[in-house]
Amino acid sequence: MRCDTLWSNARLVTGVGEGLGLVERGCVAALDGKILYAGPALDAPPFEATSTIDCDGRWITPGLIDCHTHLVHGGDRSQEFELRLAGASYEEIARAGGGIVSTMRATRAASEDALVASALPRLDALIAEGVTTVEIKSGYGLDGPSELRMLRAARRLGVERRVRVATTFLGAHALPPEFAGDADGYIAMLCDTLLPQVAAAGLADAVDAFCEEIGFSLAQTERVFQAAAAHGLPIKLHAEQLSNLQGAALAARYHALSADHLEYLDDAGVAAMAQAGTVATLLPGAYYFVRETKQPPIAALRSAGVPIALATDCNPGTSPLTSLLLAMNMGATVFGLTVEECLLGVTRNAARALGLADTVGTLAVGLACDLAIWDIERPAELVYRMGFNPLHARIWRGQ
Amino acid sequence: MRCDTLWSNARLVTGVGEGLGLVERGCVAALDGKILYAGPALDAPPFEATSTIDCDGRWITPGLIDCHTHLVHGGDRSQEFELRLAGASYEEIARAGGGIVSTMRATRAASEDALVASALPRLDALIAEGVTTVEIKSGYGLDGPSELRMLRAARRLGVERRVRVATTFLGAHALPPEFAGDADGYIAMLCDTLLPQVAAAGLADAVDAFCEEIGFSLAQTERVFQAAAAHGLPIKLHAEQLSNLQGAALAARYHALSADHLEYLDDAGVAAMAQAGTVATLLPGAYYFVRETKQPPIAALRSAGVPIALATDCNPGTSPLTSLLLAMNMGATVFGLTVEECLLGVTRNAARALGLADTVGTLAVGLACDLAIWDIERPAELVYRMGFNPLHARIWRGQ
Ligand SMILES: [Zn+2]
Ligand SMILES: [Zn+2]
Repeated sequence: MRCDTLWSNARLVTGVGEGLGLVERGCVAALDGKILYAGPALDAPPFEATSTIDCDGRWITPGLIDCHTHLVHGGDRSQEFELRLAGASYEEIARAGGGIVSTMRATRAASEDALVASALPRLDALIAEGVTTVEIKSGYGLDGPSELRMLRAARRLGVERRVRVATTFLGAHALPPEFAGDADGYIAMLCDTLLPQVAAAGLADAVDAFCEEIGFSLAQTERVFQAAAAHGLPIKLHAEQLSNLQGAALAARYHALSADHLEYLDDAGVAAMAQAGTVATLLPGAYYFVRETKQPPIAALRSAGVPIALATDCNPGTSPLTSLLLAMNMGATVFGLTVEECLLGVTRNAARALGLADTVGTLAVGLACDLAIWDIERPAELVYRMGFNPLHARIWRGQ
Repeated sequence: MRCDTLWSNARLVTGVGEGLGLVERGCVAALDGKILYAGPALDAPPFEATSTIDCDGRWITPGLIDCHTHLVHGGDRSQEFELRLAGASYEEIARAGGGIVSTMRATRAASEDALVASALPRLDALIAEGVTTVEIKSGYGLDGPSELRMLRAARRLGVERRVRVATTFLGAHALPPEFAGDADGYIAMLCDTLLPQVAAAGLADAVDAFCEEIGFSLAQTERVFQAAAAHGLPIKLHAEQLSNLQGAALAARYHALSADHLEYLDDAGVAAMAQAGTVATLLPGAYYFVRETKQPPIAALRSAGVPIALATDCNPGTSPLTSLLLAMNMGATVFGLTVEECLLGVTRNAARALGLADTVGTLAVGLACDLAIWDIERPAELVYRMGFNPLHARIWRGQ
């Protein structure tokens, strides 16, 4: 059987079937950028490969997927971080220009080129650790031109690098100062004017909102979901991060791809997510960085069979994290996830959280041949170490 | 004035004087591998430099110093980590060959070449983030030949790479199975036989012990200190990590360079350390990884004026951490240290914890010109980000 490239003498985390789908003596064959075969070498048909790569027993996983990031933004919040550690109050930080509004201002002031340039080092840090697909949200522009510019910058990152970019429109991230006291008016602007523009320009693969006391209400969130549905866009939600507004259950009712954060998720929310097949995207970097103490209900999610994804939540205010390997370590160390849950959380379930399960995330035949090849002896090493990158090579679409 | 290299147009964290010793428009000049000048460009004498490097406004810090590591060891403990997350009991893990004894076995089985080869990727990860000096302990051999081999491997790492290596003899790390029930006999062997060999061969720059219920008693620790003193070697101590045995106070009485961990340190220990000038080396990676909840007494250390250092504690069992930048973030996020404390903790105070304050750790005239040059806008960025490496260049001894 003809193929373009054959990776032989490899060990595989296929993510197919039960658990991690481990294969001890495996190979992967690619044709036209897709996986033609991935499994035991003994069961493989005889391949006539244009090129064969001996992996020397190295482990191959699906290319990693960071399914929740705010990678595109202006500025950083290191000064706010420094002030907070030095004992400054939230008031003092706000007076010094801190908080999400400072990121909004810096983002509005940045050109598309500047947004791309500032995001590239962060993206490169993710890619260096085997990330081949990344989700990027808008949500720091909070006006029409700036939100569109963020999404265009996100799309351009997928041109500047070989990484696959999934964009998410998060206009409902925070209330911009122009709409102070008129959240309903802002939501109306988003739903009636901006979201239609975003959809017409094909700039978003999904729509997201921040459902929280300090974000938007359940009713406002539902309006966003309805507008997304009207434009045929799948939805996601920042839900139950700081309190329980029953956002995840609402998201599940709208067949959300994922509900994210979930520290305050209750049993009803878990059940609703399980029934809808909504992925629980956990963000231990934010939990760690803001010193949260309420853990997401891992045991309940597990026993209800809710798929769990893990992501960096890379953002300047609450998770300046650009390592998906470290997100896995935090998932295990801080949340008590198993190695298997962590690895599936950045591959199979992360793909599902982006509606891309038929495209990436496992080593199943027909999917894109996006691979990460690792200098490790056991998959657990990817979760166990902190601040160590054992990536040997990454492959996008077979190359 | 003649110099070899001049780094111009830089911003400096000198670590000299109060606080971080920041200089906004600075330059650094090196002659014969040492710092000839570091300070405001305006106050600098006119230099005739063999080569001039325009830093384009980048920040220069002293090369970073990781002052507590167990970088040299055989094997890893990722399987134990995986089993623990999957709910295995300590008994089951012990039966599966886990625990420190598994690292001892792997270390004893490894040749010097194998120890060097396995440590190099970990060392390279540290170096990649601007580390120019690293401390490396023995303590997984726990017999004469293996302890000596570990120390030789550690010394060799300083030949294989340009990094400065400080070695520490930690024979009193754990009781080897051969001496089960006879800790005093093991300590006698260390003090009467092994330590003299180590000292004669010049293989150790300091002597350390693990003073703990599961380690060695206060009396046994004191015997080690006395033997070290007899051979003119400075001492350090793993103290008050899991309980309060008053180890830090004992260490201070013996003028220890540092006492390390210190979660259970009491006021008397703080006072003793302050009086002796013993550095408190905090290891947030271990605290994080083992899910400890008792914090070291930061406020008390601060108000007593005890110098605080930060290190990775890189080791396979309780801190598989190979990022000193991440150790700084953990110091801030988990322990609440300020940005200034974190930065001084991996430069000036780390040098002091190794007895190297006259050699490295600040940009003072006459010290080795070990520099880290960073692509950042503010020093706080080095502490704020997680899993991001903004190193632009590193310089050892002026080159
Ligand atoms: Zn988010
Ligand atoms: Zn240690």
